[in-house]
Amino acid sequence: MINRLLLIGIGLIGGSLSLALKQAGKVNEVVGFSRQAETRQQALALGIIDKAVDNIAEAMQDVDMVVLAVPMGAMADTLMAIGPYVTADMVITDAGSAKGQVVAAAKLALGEHFKHFVPGHPIAGTEKSGPRAAFASLYQDHRVVLTPTEQTDRKALEQVHNMWTAAGAIVSTMDVMHHDRLLAATSHLPHILAFNLVAMLAQDDDVDEVLRYAAGGFKDFSRIASSNPVMWRDICLSNRDAILDLLTQYQQQMNLLQQAIQQQDGDHLMAVFERAKQARDSRFNDPSLIDNSEV
Amino acid sequence: MINRLLLIGIGLIGGSLSLALKQAGKVNEVVGFSRQAETRQQALALGIIDKAVDNIAEAMQDVDMVVLAVPMGAMADTLMAIGPYVTADMVITDAGSAKGQVVAAAKLALGEHFKHFVPGHPIAGTEKSGPRAAFASLYQDHRVVLTPTEQTDRKALEQVHNMWTAAGAIVSTMDVMHHDRLLAATSHLPHILAFNLVAMLAQDDDVDEVLRYAAGGFKDFSRIASSNPVMWRDICLSNRDAILDLLTQYQQQMNLLQQAIQQQDGDHLMAVFERAKQARDSRFNDPSLIDNSEV
Repeated sequence: MINRLLLIGIGLIGGSLSLALKQAGKVNEVVGFSRQAETRQQALALGIIDKAVDNIAEAMQDVDMVVLAVPMGAMADTLMAIGPYVTADMVITDAGSAKGQVVAAAKLALGEHFKHFVPGHPIAGTEKSGPRAAFASLYQDHRVVLTPTEQTDRKALEQVHNMWTAAGAIVSTMDVMHHDRLLAATSHLPHILAFNLVAMLAQDDDVDEVLRYAAGGFKDFSRIASSNPVMWRDICLSNRDAILDLLTQYQQQMNLLQQAIQQQDGDHLMAVFERAKQARDSRFNDPSLIDNSEV
Repeated sequence: MINRLLLIGIGLIGGSLSLALKQAGKVNEVVGFSRQAETRQQALALGIIDKAVDNIAEAMQDVDMVVLAVPMGAMADTLMAIGPYVTADMVITDAGSAKGQVVAAAKLALGEHFKHFVPGHPIAGTEKSGPRAAFASLYQDHRVVLTPTEQTDRKALEQVHNMWTAAGAIVSTMDVMHHDRLLAATSHLPHILAFNLVAMLAQDDDVDEVLRYAAGGFKDFSRIASSNPVMWRDICLSNRDAILDLLTQYQQQMNLLQQAIQQQDGDHLMAVFERAKQARDSRFNDPSLIDNSEV
């Protein structure tokens, strides 16, 4: 049971956590900090928070658990802002989608209290944002990854683990760098590849026609290119090293594929395509949604 | 009304066309040619064809319309096989997904009768293949592109146009090269990008973990990497030039994006991501399916 939880950032991510914990009866009071009056009012009206605060010093008073649910681009500043008010009996965690830079910023901002910071990443979301988008079941059966460092207090880790479990999530822990590489591979790289293709086609003289003939395969492939540009800029900047490593690897393999097309090397093409199909089919069993035509 | 239609290849594509034309009452008799006895028997039993033939000379007797619905890799050989039996009163069309090479092969194989060949591409399909996968409404509201050359007989073009319209399709005509570039952009390139990523991840030591953490965004993006490897090898080989042109363009733009990440150039990232989002949102209005989280 958390006595007083402070949400810094009361949007889809923070708001849904609060609603889930309230529904599970695992929190007594939720205080919400936001700079925007409208956000505070909405969150109060929706029962997401019990008390709204627009001042960090006041917000940090007597809280047991602080959850940083601000955009990645605001994470370092937010950590610096709370730094002076952190006490030994608080646990701090965040919901940022790349962990290396957040951990570095937390080390800098929290000093001796860094050990009470538990880096976290709930792998969940919808296309909407803001308190109105929040709902209690967002984390149900979704993964939350915690990336404690060697200095992280075991009790603090346990409390954050319990909090997310109470919210319905499947919680696991892994190394910071491992997390960032894993997410670069499964999420950041696909987004960059899709953004790059759609942005390229958007510059085509025949863009209207191109999009008119784009069918189901393109629609699925490019769905993630409709994602929030600010969020993705921040993720690219925050997880730079892991993304660049994988992009380099991707392009090396693409060069081989391009060469195979050039040289009409059907065997190489078959080997790559079969390896891909086999790996994907082993993970996702949704044949009815797969379109083997070229549409 | 087509009096006698010959299907060469009785799978999803050819079979569905036959069923649609029969349902619309636009064909008197459908003859089916396949080398495989099982395919012929199934097609007969399912009412897709009225007569099954395993000999090209016999199959070509007294037909008005010949539809080549064989895999891309078999198109050139099939054209060579029918060449000697084509007469001036026949119309020939195909269903291949890249047109440049088919047109070149048809020119070679059909000689003086090349003018009666109408290159076509129904942009439709499912994950299944074979006669059992065929259904009458496959082409309903799907696009069919015809790519006549300067030599194509206007009456032949009209007949093929009418046939696909009768099958429920939205038919348009465009230049061969234009078609191949358009399909490379909207279909072939996305498939190659997705195949390449999944094939790369499949070689990762942590492939099982990577796929375990892959969420909705990855699932949609990579769906097309479950497509038929043989079909996609053939498409890559058949539409080589258009694909290589666009791949080169794609990689040039990716190099700029990579450089922007390297140099922390947030403005460049924003410009690319916003352009992509705007273009996609203008075409596909499915916000409820878009996931703006990084999952």
